[in-house]
Amino acid sequence: MNCDWLKTPAKALDENCREQALQHQAILTKPPGALGVLEEIAISLAAMQANSKPELEHIHITVFAADHGITSEGVSAFPQSVTVEMIRNFANGGAAINVLAQQLGAKLNIINMGTVTQPEPMQGVTDLSIDRGTANFLHQPAMSNEQLFDALNTGRQAAERAQLQQAQLFIAGDMGIGNTTSATALACAILGLPATKLTGPGTGLDSSGIEHKTEIIDRALNFHRNYFDQPLEISRRLGGFEIAGIIGSYIACAQMGLPVLVDGFIAGTAALMATRLHAGVADWLIFAHASAEPGHARIMQAMQAKPILDLGMRLGEGSGAAVAVPLLRLACALHNNMATFEQASVSEKNA
Amino acid sequence: MNCDWLKTPAKALDENCREQALQHQAILTKPPGALGVLEEIAISLAAMQANSKPELEHIHITVFAADHGITSEGVSAFPQSVTVEMIRNFANGGAAINVLAQQLGAKLNIINMGTVTQPEPMQGVTDLSIDRGTANFLHQPAMSNEQLFDALNTGRQAAERAQLQQAQLFIAGDMGIGNTTSATALACAILGLPATKLTGPGTGLDSSGIEHKTEIIDRALNFHRNYFDQPLEISRRLGGFEIAGIIGSYIACAQMGLPVLVDGFIAGTAALMATRLHAGVADWLIFAHASAEPGHARIMQAMQAKPILDLGMRLGEGSGAAVAVPLLRLACALHNNMATFEQASVSEKNA
Repeated sequence: MNCDWLKTPAKALDENCREQALQHQAILTKPPGALGVLEEIAISLAAMQANSKPELEHIHITVFAADHGITSEGVSAFPQSVTVEMIRNFANGGAAINVLAQQLGAKLNIINMGTVTQPEPMQGVTDLSIDRGTANFLHQPAMSNEQLFDALNTGRQAAERAQLQQAQLFIAGDMGIGNTTSATALACAILGLPATKLTGPGTGLDSSGIEHKTEIIDRALNFHRNYFDQPLEISRRLGGFEIAGIIGSYIACAQMGLPVLVDGFIAGTAALMATRLHAGVADWLIFAHASAEPGHARIMQAMQAKPILDLGMRLGEGSGAAVAVPLLRLACALHNNMATFEQASVSEKNA
Repeated sequence: MNCDWLKTPAKALDENCREQALQHQAILTKPPGALGVLEEIAISLAAMQANSKPELEHIHITVFAADHGITSEGVSAFPQSVTVEMIRNFANGGAAINVLAQQLGAKLNIINMGTVTQPEPMQGVTDLSIDRGTANFLHQPAMSNEQLFDALNTGRQAAERAQLQQAQLFIAGDMGIGNTTSATALACAILGLPATKLTGPGTGLDSSGIEHKTEIIDRALNFHRNYFDQPLEISRRLGGFEIAGIIGSYIACAQMGLPVLVDGFIAGTAALMATRLHAGVADWLIFAHASAEPGHARIMQAMQAKPILDLGMRLGEGSGAAVAVPLLRLACALHNNMATFEQASVSEKNA
């Protein structure tokens, strides 16, 4: 296995469609700019979909799940068994992302990329386990090269499946106890920041828990410090299977021209890594929400991204992205269905 | 006609249902608080609907439209004829609020409360004209007492109609060229602020236009300065028919126990006036979005309100509230349909 596909260029945005959409917004019966971000969304989607009247009927959500060796350092408020238990909850339709996918009429795929205990086969869960969780990156790389490539490739295949099924928008979600520790370490390494600048409570650590998590991350950063300028190597050393899966899916989406709606802290970190591995990915990312995890703001800042929503969410699973989908759909509906000044015989702004 | 009904107490929130909803949120399969504002919305709606599993299937939107005498001072970027032209656009289904109502499956009512030219009868538009627009409040009160009471009562009747039709949420929208000038004057009077603190571009004034609008508002405030401690009198002197209609609708909703989703600058000012006329109204208001009109933030602050969305919208018509409806619905769906830790056999947080 290799990762040569990572270098394939991203699809170019359609600048004609963007321009047409921009001009169309200007003649709709409203003061220019009065729909704010909804106008920008419709125009961006027009450029991505190469369609001056963009549509978002078919939404695909893939949740990537995996365990993390770093949890043995006591960095999470929840026990590691929750990763598998939540995979079972996804299979049974009881998790937040199940409810959201059902409400949105979105396709939902769950991929088990490697958990400490191997669960029974479950309807709706694809078992693509790479290993029984990653290694503890405090003392060694989290993955081998082969494992990293495998994880990136799983993400690519998830994106390709969505594309084959006519998806018009791709959402990646995450599940993995300990994964805010991995994501924080990745972001610190790439942004050259100490752990104090980015570490947060994750699923709910108290202040002494955060202090301990910060110390573990700083020690890990010190161990891997010679590789901070190599995003692929950093992904291998500090990443998780599910985070690498998301990175791979984002790069593949950009290459195929499938718009991505980015969820919160884990997905945002994957987006940061993906854009450092492949600058062309940035054009294909729409940022759904500002996570309550405190480091998220800095990660968004590093990508000059301004998320659409700020609802204090910090759940993962793709839930924050799913919640933003209706706004994207309304943006398209307004763009496509409002009357123009001429059609409605409404007077325009005074000269 | 009188306005004694304004004094009827607001319905009490159901604190048992709030408590049940709060406890239910704590046992759903997610870290406590991880759904952020969506949890708060579900809990608030439970208390308002007296239902620990709140629902938002039936949404009613009423757009109140009227003209403003103050437009003769040149305070708007659009000509006054646009009010009637937009009423026609509403009737023909071409405006933003039509598209949104259709997407949401919401009932949409349009009420003409008085425009300078009387339009032809239109399907879907209820003509309850009070006069050919308000008087120019630069030199006289905008309305007579009778007209104010009439307008408040029209709002009450709109809310009652929604309630009769089993609405679970009420949205008021506005249309009226010049109405940011009226709303700004109302808010300045009630908050004791000079016009410079609140005046903005409305539908799109340039900086010299804003300067002129500010000066007009300050002169009007000076003319009416002896009544700032009387919210009903201020509503009569500086208000608009549609703004008074919205005020009346909000008060009636609170009295009947129908939750209100408040739109942007005009609706937010009406909410401020309503809470000053009747403190009990505040319990029944959910604030949908932060308007791009600069004075809106101060109006929200005065009510200690934190709007759900911040999308840079400034259209009116109830559009910003309509855009927030899917988030409220998803909040309810998550609250009602997610599995509990026990149901899903998911381990809870470490002690």
